[in-house]
Amino acid sequence: MAGKLCVPAMNVNDSVTKQKFDNLYCCRESILDGLKRTTDVMFGGKQVVVCGYGEVGKGCCAALKALGAIVYITEIDPICALQACMDGFRVVKLNEVIRQVDVVITCTGNKNVVTREHLDRMKNSCIVCNMGHSNTEIDVTSLRTPELTWERVRSQVDHVIWPDGKRVVLLAEGRLLNLSCSTVPTFVLSITATTQALALIELYNAPEGRYKQDVYLLPKKMDEYVASLHLPSFDAHLTELTDDQAKYLGLNKNGPFKPNYYR
Amino acid sequence: MAGKLCVPAMNVNDSVTKQKFDNLYCCRESILDGLKRTTDVMFGGKQVVVCGYGEVGKGCCAALKALGAIVYITEIDPICALQACMDGFRVVKLNEVIRQVDVVITCTGNKNVVTREHLDRMKNSCIVCNMGHSNTEIDVTSLRTPELTWERVRSQVDHVIWPDGKRVVLLAEGRLLNLSCSTVPTFVLSITATTQALALIELYNAPEGRYKQDVYLLPKKMDEYVASLHLPSFDAHLTELTDDQAKYLGLNKNGPFKPNYYR
Amino acid sequence: MAGKLCVPAMNVNDSVTKQKFDNLYCCRESILDGLKRTTDVMFGGKQVVVCGYGEVGKGCCAALKALGAIVYITEIDPICALQACMDGFRVVKLNEVIRQVDVVITCTGNKNVVTREHLDRMKNSCIVCNMGHSNTEIDVTSLRTPELTWERVRSQVDHVIWPDGKRVVLLAEGRLLNLSCSTVPTFVLSITATTQALALIELYNAPEGRYKQDVYLLPKKMDEYVASLHLPSFDAHLTELTDDQAKYLGLNKNGPFKPNYYR
Amino acid sequence: MAGKLCVPAMNVNDSVTKQKFDNLYCCRESILDGLKRTTDVMFGGKQVVVCGYGEVGKGCCAALKALGAIVYITEIDPICALQACMDGFRVVKLNEVIRQVDVVITCTGNKNVVTREHLDRMKNSCIVCNMGHSNTEIDVTSLRTPELTWERVRSQVDHVIWPDGKRVVLLAEGRLLNLSCSTVPTFVLSITATTQALALIELYNAPEGRYKQDVYLLPKKMDEYVASLHLPSFDAHLTELTDDQAKYLGLNKNGPFKPNYYR
Repeated sequence: MAGKLCVPAMNVNDSVTKQKFDNLYCCRESILDGLKRTTDVMFGGKQVVVCGYGEVGKGCCAALKALGAIVYITEIDPICALQACMDGFRVVKLNEVIRQVDVVITCTGNKNVVTREHLDRMKNSCIVCNMGHSNTEIDVTSLRTPELTWERVRSQVDHVIWPDGKRVVLLAEGRLLNLSCSTVPTFVLSITATTQALALIELYNAPEGRYKQDVYLLPKKMDEYVASLHLPSFDAHLTELTDDQAKYLGLNKNGPFKPNYYR
Repeated sequence: MAGKLCVPAMNVNDSVTKQKFDNLYCCRESILDGLKRTTDVMFGGKQVVVCGYGEVGKGCCAALKALGAIVYITEIDPICALQACMDGFRVVKLNEVIRQVDVVITCTGNKNVVTREHLDRMKNSCIVCNMGHSNTEIDVTSLRTPELTWERVRSQVDHVIWPDGKRVVLLAEGRLLNLSCSTVPTFVLSITATTQALALIELYNAPEGRYKQDVYLLPKKMDEYVASLHLPSFDAHLTELTDDQAKYLGLNKNGPFKPNYYR
Repeated sequence: MAGKLCVPAMNVNDSVTKQKFDNLYCCRESILDGLKRTTDVMFGGKQVVVCGYGEVGKGCCAALKALGAIVYITEIDPICALQACMDGFRVVKLNEVIRQVDVVITCTGNKNVVTREHLDRMKNSCIVCNMGHSNTEIDVTSLRTPELTWERVRSQVDHVIWPDGKRVVLLAEGRLLNLSCSTVPTFVLSITATTQALALIELYNAPEGRYKQDVYLLPKKMDEYVASLHLPSFDAHLTELTDDQAKYLGLNKNGPFKPNYYR
Repeated sequence: MAGKLCVPAMNVNDSVTKQKFDNLYCCRESILDGLKRTTDVMFGGKQVVVCGYGEVGKGCCAALKALGAIVYITEIDPICALQACMDGFRVVKLNEVIRQVDVVITCTGNKNVVTREHLDRMKNSCIVCNMGHSNTEIDVTSLRTPELTWERVRSQVDHVIWPDGKRVVLLAEGRLLNLSCSTVPTFVLSITATTQALALIELYNAPEGRYKQDVYLLPKKMDEYVASLHLPSFDAHLTELTDDQAKYLGLNKNGPFKPNYYR
């Protein structure tokens, strides 16, 4: 029946390892890679506005700041906005900076974050791209009007040209830059695939009754197991709790080491 | 009766703003401040081991790395260990680096993380301090033995001297460095106090029956309210959702903007 | 006779090790230390303008950026200004940001960089300090007028109070913050003292005629020697050129490895 | 006649803007770009050794550190080695880390920095590339022996396979990675081309006798002029000296602002 689960399901997307690797750490690298491969832009000194300071936005901003870009943030959530402040970014409304920025990046999970009005006000050669959830963050449809000319300059790169000659550089027609114009490192794929495989194994092996027709978070211990399988690549050496320490902390020596909601 | 709550309680400690500000952002500054005020140590080029890569450890490591220290991490939790790897830190067992490091910092919430055996193996002039939860992280008691001489060189700074002349520089007798040897910025106090005040107001104003004799997390919306009250200090400008966007995201335009477990 | 050297002199101030350590690396730490000890200010999210992007300015800016401050630069030299751009800082005139910043830091070697007019326009609680060459960079004299009240709030910290109640926080009466309100690490002193001692030894031992009544730069090889003496503190291991490599590079295996003007 | 200049020449290569842009700032970006385009490697957590800590090495290291790599340095010059220490890098001999690193990068200007012996000891999948001056830094010739198999896996990427199956990933056959596998931003080209054009104009316009048949450094003032022409791209606003300040500093208000040797 529509809208009703027939079997138990595991929400692997919200596991910590999946979240941090696919989002924070992977995007920190793929924003640079995607922009370089498509536009050869130099990051040093560029003014960039990043819409959204969740995990993806945090990753993009850290990388761009490190390479000498000046980054502005837009946010709707005061907690994320305050984090942006503490990390050294000005929190602005898009309109305040849209005329001056060299690059606009969306990472919101929202729609119509960059509107035709914003696009009209961008300066010549402004690069616009999306690292968020789908091709709705930038209102690309609004650019399909007769007075604007589209020119495909290379794969995944369109120049949208205004009547006065101004060009906006649109990447991947507003689809996800990290999927369209960058590659996903095998290391990240390995973490994601391991998480999915473990979830399936757990569902298959679980005694009857443990999971009902509902959506479950991956048990913390399995999340930790995924991480521990990937530590040897980094020659990382975990410390073991002594019996005495485990007792003091009220933990099992083999984990889980944190509550389920820990991020 | 012992062990039983007579009134409802609010766990303000686990609210996001409290966690991030008192831990991550505040410790990022107070580790530098505490070490400078007590020892005048230069951070550039120093080898430092930080035990524990939770919020406090992440803050300490970010600051020390930024100022040119070489930082090693010890961890028991594979997820935090993997985060340390991705942030550019070697994850080691304490014994692997204890002979070579210039500074040892504990941020674990655990006890006896630095033992007498470790202290015996440290090099001359090694600085030892605690940013974690109490004075049990470093086994200071083990240093109160006849063969070791204690010399108070200034307030909060003891030299513990081995028979061969080796000195270990112990700060605040293993108590919290950030409380003993640094100051807490008024900004952080304001966030913490606001959170506590809002929790009390909520408990006082809540209609009968909303809270029972149990411990509650601060509602997400209040956490967001605390953050929003502090944004003007940074001249930060929040973006408002349009009706259409709020509907698309399934959110109220005034928040809460994230699930309760979001960190 | 006035203005005439009677003996040879060595300009140790312009040796590389002296310049980089006393200026870039030392100031990177002492700006944080000096501000914390005097004002307990939190750096995260603060807007700071740094006047001058030479070695001292570069050090100050790197540290402040790393701790989450938003930093603006003023410069007179287009080369330094371009470097500031590439390092991710907005280059502005002081007037453009003076109303909005939380901290003003001078590192110019110039005089009257911060004038009474600037001071009049600062916002309440703005912190003003000098990391440059002397107490002339901030026009402190202009604040000694009857309508302004001075209040000493602690050692090295004055509140200058305008008739409308606005307070500017002046540190060390405009003298050098790093000397007045911070300490100089022994490591930096050691480098400076070694450089001076070697210069004296060189002058004393030099065969007659090598040095005339003039000012000389420390020979590059001695500069390198000062550095090599300090490498063991960091357990740093130098690589030696093979004979073949030395020949290829046209260098003596024992240095000097760079031309005199290399920085 | 061989070895004798027939006309005056300008050494544009050693001008500040050329040096910093082509080397430090450009390489900071192209090391990431070159490695991504050829190998899709994830930088987070990777162990990297960079041979040489001059301008190119400094740029490479800053970028890799910022993206979470653990970077080791080899150096022959104690001054550069000490700078590496202060910037937070372990200075080692190549042999100390060659078995453990994931990436080897040469930036020395020297030859045979990575020898067959080093290549024999690298671990499986180690990436080797050159950002220095020519294809002699890695002894690629030593890999053309019968027991090793070369496999071209994509353009600019060879797997060199040892009899036991170990593969070393050699990029651009040891030629310059930044030229072979990355692109040069137009901004950097503009700076270089402007410097060259100005040098030619100066030589052409100079009154007879100003330049003889020798090699000259670009006058500082022209170097500053190149920089000033590029500031508007960043919307950077220079501050002008007042007459009084220029007199105090002993400078012309229009520059040059620094001595010729300033870097």
